[in-house]
Amino acid sequence: MAIKSKQQGKKTAATAAKLAKAVKPGKPAVVKVAILGFGTVGSSVAAVLTASKFPGIELTHIFNRGFERKRRSAAGKRVPASVVWTDDVGVILASDVDVVIELMGGLNPVEGWLRKALAAGKSVVTANKQLIAYRGAGLARLAEQHGVQLVYGAAVAGGVPVIPGMLQGLSGDTVTRLSGIVNGTCNYILSRMETGADYATVLADAQQLGYAEADPSADVDGFDARAKLCILSRIALHAELDPDAVATQSIAAIEAIDFTYAKELGCTIRQISRAQLSNVKGEGTVVHARVAPMLVPLASPIAWSHGTQNMVVVSGRFGGDVVFSGHGAGGEPTAVAVVSDLLAVAQGCRTVQLPVRKRAVTGEFMAPHYLRFVVDDKPGIVSAISGALSKVGANIDSILQRPGYPKHRLPFVVTTEPCLTSTIEHAVASIAKMDCMLERPLCLQMLVMEDKEDAG
Amino acid sequence: MAIKSKQQGKKTAATAAKLAKAVKPGKPAVVKVAILGFGTVGSSVAAVLTASKFPGIELTHIFNRGFERKRRSAAGKRVPASVVWTDDVGVILASDVDVVIELMGGLNPVEGWLRKALAAGKSVVTANKQLIAYRGAGLARLAEQHGVQLVYGAAVAGGVPVIPGMLQGLSGDTVTRLSGIVNGTCNYILSRMETGADYATVLADAQQLGYAEADPSADVDGFDARAKLCILSRIALHAELDPDAVATQSIAAIEAIDFTYAKELGCTIRQISRAQLSNVKGEGTVVHARVAPMLVPLASPIAWSHGTQNMVVVSGRFGGDVVFSGHGAGGEPTAVAVVSDLLAVAQGCRTVQLPVRKRAVTGEFMAPHYLRFVVDDKPGIVSAISGALSKVGANIDSILQRPGYPKHRLPFVVTTEPCLTSTIEHAVASIAKMDCMLERPLCLQMLVMEDKEDAG
Repeated sequence: MAIKSKQQGKKTAATAAKLAKAVKPGKPAVVKVAILGFGTVGSSVAAVLTASKFPGIELTHIFNRGFERKRRSAAGKRVPASVVWTDDVGVILASDVDVVIELMGGLNPVEGWLRKALAAGKSVVTANKQLIAYRGAGLARLAEQHGVQLVYGAAVAGGVPVIPGMLQGLSGDTVTRLSGIVNGTCNYILSRMETGADYATVLADAQQLGYAEADPSADVDGFDARAKLCILSRIALHAELDPDAVATQSIAAIEAIDFTYAKELGCTIRQISRAQLSNVKGEGTVVHARVAPMLVPLASPIAWSHGTQNMVVVSGRFGGDVVFSGHGAGGEPTAVAVVSDLLAVAQGCRTVQLPVRKRAVTGEFMAPHYLRFVVDDKPGIVSAISGALSKVGANIDSILQRPGYPKHRLPFVVTTEPCLTSTIEHAVASIAKMDCMLERPLCLQMLVMEDKEDAG
Repeated sequence: MAIKSKQQGKKTAATAAKLAKAVKPGKPAVVKVAILGFGTVGSSVAAVLTASKFPGIELTHIFNRGFERKRRSAAGKRVPASVVWTDDVGVILASDVDVVIELMGGLNPVEGWLRKALAAGKSVVTANKQLIAYRGAGLARLAEQHGVQLVYGAAVAGGVPVIPGMLQGLSGDTVTRLSGIVNGTCNYILSRMETGADYATVLADAQQLGYAEADPSADVDGFDARAKLCILSRIALHAELDPDAVATQSIAAIEAIDFTYAKELGCTIRQISRAQLSNVKGEGTVVHARVAPMLVPLASPIAWSHGTQNMVVVSGRFGGDVVFSGHGAGGEPTAVAVVSDLLAVAQGCRTVQLPVRKRAVTGEFMAPHYLRFVVDDKPGIVSAISGALSKVGANIDSILQRPGYPKHRLPFVVTTEPCLTSTIEHAVASIAKMDCMLERPLCLQMLVMEDKEDAG
């Protein structure tokens, strides 16, 4: 949760000493806390702090633009009367607040504010995945320079302690790959589609329920998950990635028929974020990374995640697969991660620090693929497709064609044996040009279970 | 992972400073490490340390009785030549070792040795669940007095970072209950029985594979899991329990027919360790705790665990259910937990400390129950059983009797609506006395999924 900070020992020891004093008699010293952003998560953090009364922690400031409406809300009324509400972030930066909790999201203006907070000797707890994915390394250096902490356990998978669990419990392993479901919106959409609903209907429901934005692109096109994957890669693989270099594929092209065929293959479909280290001759260590809808075996832990749940599977050289799962979003689960981070900062706790290196990213994976075509059926199509695949050296593993679809708009599926992403994309590009193709072929990776049961 | 230690800041800061020096040029300072016990886990810890070459950590001593055989083994030969092997623990206690890793198990003589190590200013990393369950609080006080750390992330669920994950990532929640599979041997046996094998055969296989001891009692009767449950309760519920006060029930009474009936009820059977806080009028907060074979819904995460896998579900007031799962045993997964703890101690990392209180334990749960009877069938049996149940106020939820069994040895099942453990046990005791009963009735709790999906 904590980014390395050489000088922070001094500062956090001081904070810890302050806290130690706080639980002794006499006028208590406290760790003073400000919340930036009183939305769903911000109001939940305030509620948890108010309900749990952790000794030595005091919420003193809340920043929100036009805060009056927030202050008068039900959640706002439960905030202690002593808290200062403000829409001027300068008030907080100039105050004696020790820890700034940032729950606003986005890069601007938040990055500038947090830089000022760190420079003013305030530790920062944030749930801001975009900020940490794009600017985390720089902010961490700034925190280090000023002897304070920057922690972001809430930035990935909300209440699921995958970041602290890895930092604290898997530092002794050599993690070589990770895969997970880190976007609850996509998981809600795809797990509803698994039971027969179509994409447009489910997306509308998700928007109605507040799971998806009016513009759902950040979720369904994979940009939200990509930021989280980069943060997980930093912690699990000790690899700093450029988020923009990570390949993404939208879930919007998935149709009901794909779940039907997936089921025949013993699979379902989920938006998967995966990253994996490998050594490429002449290039050194590279990270294979991708956010895309993929076929996942129904028997794998990944397929267990339903609704807005998150799940991350971390695979280590020594420890094998470790699974973390739970509520990845929502006010209260995310507040648990934020408050846990706050307690760690307040008590001067740090986690094990290991060197992180910048790594090149590739979208290449060696994987079996699922290809779904919709064609105006005529003799020779299967032969033409198999010809295009064999031309690039991709072997067909199965051909599935369910009865009952009209010949003039026939959906059918070809799966391949493991081959490189670029190879299959090359073949698909040539197949897409065939006259009989009524839609762009859908090409999905199939996730393979690698950590076999030792027994049973 | 760390038990509270007021004075440890000084010592761990010194250790951290030593490590910081270690990575600078010049003659490096190192954190010196001894391993007590070069068995499966001990040799794996040595192998991980040798393979991973963490800067500033040096394995200097290995203790094992009759170490010559160990030193000449394949694993022993891979240990650096600089390591001192000894069968005199006094050599290690008198040395300048900073951290003692204890992997021998049991209370004696280990407790005395570790007391001496802590008193000599050495931090202790241990995987010893019995020691921590029974003597953890006293050892923690000793560590505190001497300004060193006592950490035991490997004591529960091996390579699954449930202890560090909870300490670091769930401290902000108020955990009210936990349930899990923390004994791989029982899970291997029961998940094999689920596919049709009988208890005796599977137990023999487990012994053959090294999963079960010649005397399997510690595993199958629940004593191993009970110690782990007490450790988890300390960390998740902040409750110190007397392990001997936790009710256990053996899995040895489970038969193939129970899996048949469980399946009809949409369930399977697992050895479950569960604990739950409640406020009892006049008694304050008590912990309901039990280790027993229970029926678990096939749709619940608990049922996903196969083979020797471990899984723990922690339920918080704010964060809902969080699931941790992975390899709970075996040399390398357990070594990951040990080495992660070692890195934390070496870098002077601590986790959030919250007050732990002694709590009274009760075996009472309000739960639906599964009752399996084997009778010499005659008219009136169901009526007599339902009479005995209604006498104590337990309502029948279902009666299941599969065809095809001989009338003179007929297994059938009654399930009840939720009722208290003591109530159902009272009824079962009177039913057991009925002439037609050929075996002691089997009475199992049925675990209910409480954390419903928010969607999908």
